[in-house]
Amino acid sequence: MSVLSINCGSSSLKYLLYDWDAQKVLASGLIDRIGLPDSNIVHKHNDQKIERKGKCADHRTAINLVLAFLQEAKVIHSLQDIEGVGHRIVHGGEKFSASARVDDAVLAEIKANGDLAPLHTPPNVVGIESARAVMPDTPQIVIFDTAFHQTMPEHAYSYALDYALAQKYKIRKYGFHGSSHRYVSERAAELLGGKNAWKLIIAHVGNGSSLSAVRGGKCVDTSMGLTPLAGVIMGTRTGDIDPAVVQVLADKLGEPLPQILNRLNKESGMLGVSGYSDQRDIIAGAENGDARCRLALQMQAYSIKKYIGAYLAVLDGADALIFTAGIGENSASFRQDVCADLGNLGIKLDLAKNKERGGERIISAPDSRVKVMVIPTNEEFIIARDVIEIVRGK
Amino acid sequence: MSVLSINCGSSSLKYLLYDWDAQKVLASGLIDRIGLPDSNIVHKHNDQKIERKGKCADHRTAINLVLAFLQEAKVIHSLQDIEGVGHRIVHGGEKFSASARVDDAVLAEIKANGDLAPLHTPPNVVGIESARAVMPDTPQIVIFDTAFHQTMPEHAYSYALDYALAQKYKIRKYGFHGSSHRYVSERAAELLGGKNAWKLIIAHVGNGSSLSAVRGGKCVDTSMGLTPLAGVIMGTRTGDIDPAVVQVLADKLGEPLPQILNRLNKESGMLGVSGYSDQRDIIAGAENGDARCRLALQMQAYSIKKYIGAYLAVLDGADALIFTAGIGENSASFRQDVCADLGNLGIKLDLAKNKERGGERIISAPDSRVKVMVIPTNEEFIIARDVIEIVRGK
Repeated sequence: MSVLSINCGSSSLKYLLYDWDAQKVLASGLIDRIGLPDSNIVHKHNDQKIERKGKCADHRTAINLVLAFLQEAKVIHSLQDIEGVGHRIVHGGEKFSASARVDDAVLAEIKANGDLAPLHTPPNVVGIESARAVMPDTPQIVIFDTAFHQTMPEHAYSYALDYALAQKYKIRKYGFHGSSHRYVSERAAELLGGKNAWKLIIAHVGNGSSLSAVRGGKCVDTSMGLTPLAGVIMGTRTGDIDPAVVQVLADKLGEPLPQILNRLNKESGMLGVSGYSDQRDIIAGAENGDARCRLALQMQAYSIKKYIGAYLAVLDGADALIFTAGIGENSASFRQDVCADLGNLGIKLDLAKNKERGGERIISAPDSRVKVMVIPTNEEFIIARDVIEIVRGK
Repeated sequence: MSVLSINCGSSSLKYLLYDWDAQKVLASGLIDRIGLPDSNIVHKHNDQKIERKGKCADHRTAINLVLAFLQEAKVIHSLQDIEGVGHRIVHGGEKFSASARVDDAVLAEIKANGDLAPLHTPPNVVGIESARAVMPDTPQIVIFDTAFHQTMPEHAYSYALDYALAQKYKIRKYGFHGSSHRYVSERAAELLGGKNAWKLIIAHVGNGSSLSAVRGGKCVDTSMGLTPLAGVIMGTRTGDIDPAVVQVLADKLGEPLPQILNRLNKESGMLGVSGYSDQRDIIAGAENGDARCRLALQMQAYSIKKYIGAYLAVLDGADALIFTAGIGENSASFRQDVCADLGNLGIKLDLAKNKERGGERIISAPDSRVKVMVIPTNEEFIIARDVIEIVRGK
């Protein structure tokens, strides 16, 4: 039996079909430019990539296209092969600390949180409603990017705003990338063995990046905030900056606030500093003497190093520091920069091991008090497992 | 010979007369509500407090009032007793990494930085111009809150904004409280002895609060940013928050940006969370079971603890952690909360020593790898010394 996971953006639908019993991906794909005359339709299965152009009017049509393709290509025989659909939802607010089966009350609650992620929630809701319409007999499950972080204590998630104002508008730290932090912290605890009282620092570093501090399997702090803009420097996002910068930019540029925030989210970070958005281009630039590329890499490593220090203080030391996601898994030079000069805090890389490629691995020196590990993330596994557990009953 | 230090706000002038040879404060005072019919005039000397009401039309009149008082009260015999005037200036931009003697070029440069601190620079400039007019034969020296932090490396002071934009508008981290961080780091190095290669973390915690990481006498990072809003939670300022909060509040409240920033600067922080602005009231509230007071104290200690961890990572461990300023010097419970559960990072308080009152003192346990100290700050000493060194020639 398999699980179909769906991730809807405003004009896109990503999907992945996961065979739970065989623990493997059967097919995946992306329908982009939904609603435009020239939508892109891409399917991948059996190492094949099938691309089509055509008109896909809306998300409901997109789901029908996916289901038709999966049957045509004989990935599934009928819709009965899909045991459940998992919807990846960006914002679960304060109500969702775990995945949930969709019913009218759950859907209403997701809509009520819409204010917290006004760009992401409406297409997420369209995805749920479309899948319910197209597959009325298949259980629909929602998996939240924020859920894993709902265990943060109040003093960690609260902002020092006027109390009544923060309560009224639910302005607090939520955190994102929850399925990734959850997966990686579970795998790390399994690899470390024994009873899970481990203190872990997870560095999920990709185009979006976030760190979390995890104690005994529960998140106690994370670097992203009310939105994914806060925390460490990312591909195109500033991460933490003085909030007064928003006002200064608005004054200087004479632009409305949404445009300023768009600059901070989409034109800043590694792209803003270096001029390049792909980490490999930035590394190549730095090697060729481009000062801005070098600066961007220093700033990135530095901002992550500071969060590692902060979370060492939060946890009073850590058993392991784990790198995951695109850059965390694949860039040895990035990991080396982050871990440089942390020996007195108990973090020492084995530089040779750090350069080896592979799956789950330990890359710290034998005398490193903190084990440094690379664990490839697997959010699809978390989504499929939550769907299966909820559909079959835990 | 003595030094007159002056700190001008938009409708206020604080002064202090420091006897450099005797190393003591001769007189101090505040003229408030300048330009209004009922200005407040307060002088302190010889343990006396002299209060007057009256009209003080402008800053030039205020300086004349101060000089007249000092002579009437026989604190000085004539203006010749004042060897130099030290002006405390909030923002020195990137040009001033040290104090400077005022000439037309220096004054022009201070004005050119006005954009970076639009509320503070104009009254600072008025103070300089008034003192030059009133005391044309006395050297005028400017001492900048930002100067000590100008040694930060580029990767520490840069924000991950669009590079050209950040350059054009000089949007970067500057840091403040520089004279305090400088004084405390010098004293700590003297107390630790030997060649100053010490790695220090300074926690200046008062109504405004900032931390700095200092290596070999030079600041390598600090918590405040482009403005004093960033960093740890303060009396009325939020410290670090997701910059997207600015947009959310502007949307929800329908208020213009300056009003939102005013909320973050003046109605947030400890006041916003607890409802009280005085730390003693908040501690008393927490002891009486007020949940918001308890939360505010937890948040404050937590935000400082995270910066201590971050700076331990920046410095690869520290020789000393030093508390200074109102709360840092005087609140034992605050220091205990901050240092709790940092034993694995080498920070262990001696709880009995922490409770003792006094001047400069070590409050860590003998086996604490990081020495924890309290050093009362003395910004006036730094101002007077800079004036004397520049006037007499170093």
